Amino acid sequence: MIVVLTGGTGGAKLVQGLALILPPAELTIVVNTGDDLVWWGLHVSPDLDTITYGLSGRLSIERGWGVDGDSFHCREAMGSLGSPVWFQLGDRDLATHLVRTQLMTAGRTLSQATEHITRGLGIGSRVLPMTDSTVETRVMTPQGELSFQEYFVRDRFRPEVSGVRFAGAEQARPAPGVIEAIECAAAVVLAPSNPVTSIGPILAVPGIREALLRTRAPAVAVSPLVGNAAVSGPTGNLMRSQGLPVSLEGIIRCYDDFLDLLLVDSRDALNAAGNELFNVPLHASNIVMKSESEKVELARQTLLAAHAITPRDRTTLKRHEA
Amino acid sequence: MIVVLTGGTGGAKLVQGLALILPPAELTIVVNTGDDLVWWGLHVSPDLDTITYGLSGRLSIERGWGVDGDSFHCREAMGSLGSPVWFQLGDRDLATHLVRTQLMTAGRTLSQATEHITRGLGIGSRVLPMTDSTVETRVMTPQGELSFQEYFVRDRFRPEVSGVRFAGAEQARPAPGVIEAIECAAAVVLAPSNPVTSIGPILAVPGIREALLRTRAPAVAVSPLVGNAAVSGPTGNLMRSQGLPVSLEGIIRCYDDFLDLLLVDSRDALNAAGNELFNVPLHASNIVMKSESEKVELARQTLLAAHAITPRDRTTLKRHEA
Repeated sequence: MIVVLTGGTGGAKLVQGLALILPPAELTIVVNTGDDLVWWGLHVSPDLDTITYGLSGRLSIERGWGVDGDSFHCREAMGSLGSPVWFQLGDRDLATHLVRTQLMTAGRTLSQATEHITRGLGIGSRVLPMTDSTVETRVMTPQGELSFQEYFVRDRFRPEVSGVRFAGAEQARPAPGVIEAIECAAAVVLAPSNPVTSIGPILAVPGIREALLRTRAPAVAVSPLVGNAAVSGPTGNLMRSQGLPVSLEGIIRCYDDFLDLLLVDSRDALNAAGNELFNVPLHASNIVMKSESEKVELARQTLLAAHAITPRDRTTLKRHEA
Repeated sequence: MIVVLTGGTGGAKLVQGLALILPPAELTIVVNTGDDLVWWGLHVSPDLDTITYGLSGRLSIERGWGVDGDSFHCREAMGSLGSPVWFQLGDRDLATHLVRTQLMTAGRTLSQATEHITRGLGIGSRVLPMTDSTVETRVMTPQGELSFQEYFVRDRFRPEVSGVRFAGAEQARPAPGVIEAIECAAAVVLAPSNPVTSIGPILAVPGIREALLRTRAPAVAVSPLVGNAAVSGPTGNLMRSQGLPVSLEGIIRCYDDFLDLLLVDSRDALNAAGNELFNVPLHASNIVMKSESEKVELARQTLLAAHAITPRDRTTLKRHEA
């Protein structure tokens, strides 16, 4: 069993690649829910949806979110009624949120709602929210604390970021199956997602980091950076807000207590002295996924690297504190 | 002030006609909510929406419900996720239900939500739900008790009907403004809606019938029948279930304790002996509204008839009990 920890966009591409080469039952995806929001009265889980639409072939490649070819007639009508429309939900996409909200209003958990939705869309792999508790990624900016979507979508990640916190994380519990999946995994893959606000919330759920320290599975991460800049989005600013350098060093610092290998872009590997950094071996590859074949190739490289590596002895590893 | 009591389809046409000849502020519409349902987790008020879309020029004339030219992409996606889709909500239409549900979840009443929606759609007339309480029209059939929409939409009004009840009506209170509107009206118009399940629930809300008995305004009804058959829908079967003849006599029996005049189709007027029936004066007109000009003409006829008539002394009137 391959277990992937992931956020949205970048992670979804690697997950798509993995799904194309693994039997569905061999893949479990643990997804960030720190970006979740209530929008138009509906429970929206952007990262879960991006993964789910990616796995079911519905994801809009153009947008990187939502359903391919979707219309936005409801959104337009919401605007006419004076409702905010900066967060966009397509008409087909709406069905997912309606079903999720209905199930959760009736007392089902986010995990159960996710299972219902993924089954409905014919997805054979397990998609697990990191938690069924409410964990909210909050971004500190000069204009005050913002929800992640206010920062990311409404304000287009323009505000300066002085800090990030995961409200509710301390009381949160991993969703059913998450710990077991990590413990029994053949390999754990950290997708090329933002380490601060995509993978960060997952690691902030008590028990998940501990399971990564405990598991015998190798843990490999795919860098979300190429040439010390994020492939997309506000990763750089968010890393800086944590006192992390926007570089492979910064990525390794986020994971160095359990990471066995980092897949990096070939260009960056050349810059790194030798083929390891802070005792973490590096594996060079093309990590920019623009086509289906690049997704598959990176997925293949990731699995090969994971199978080739012997997990380090974690009892001797110490985490860099930011 | 003209006050109209109405259900959906037929009533919406007369309301459209009245809105075309009256200043918006001179028109108050009291709408049946016995057909309301929770669908896909949303509070849907079919008759309120038909009236609202009719007044804002959005109503689909083809369908008689929903928004003109609407798409049904969300519905299709709901079907893919295994949700029932026999009750159809269009993508633009969904915005109305999302906004209503959000407001009501936040503690606002149906009246307040309706005011928000009608204002958003630029409607100048007052649209009032009959009540902010929950009143459910239940239809007794051989297969058990059905909600109105199960009977009407899902089962296409094919089941035999042995009875109708308005669950919750006894505890219901008229929505704010309903009683005052009737008391202060220049005329009360009963739209050509089904007397059993469209006007019936309104009259079942304690206090509304009493206000109709008390008001000095003339009460005129437009018959929903032509030639002893309903212009549309299951009116005939529902009247029979109440022991009412499907005829002008049956219509009059529903309202005879407060009705001052009945507008009937010219063909039916000829069949009635004299120009009154059970002491209720008849006014012959074309009551089938297929075009905008026919809506306006019937609205004009209705207002003229109402202004010409002197309300009968209601203390001497006795209601026919079915």
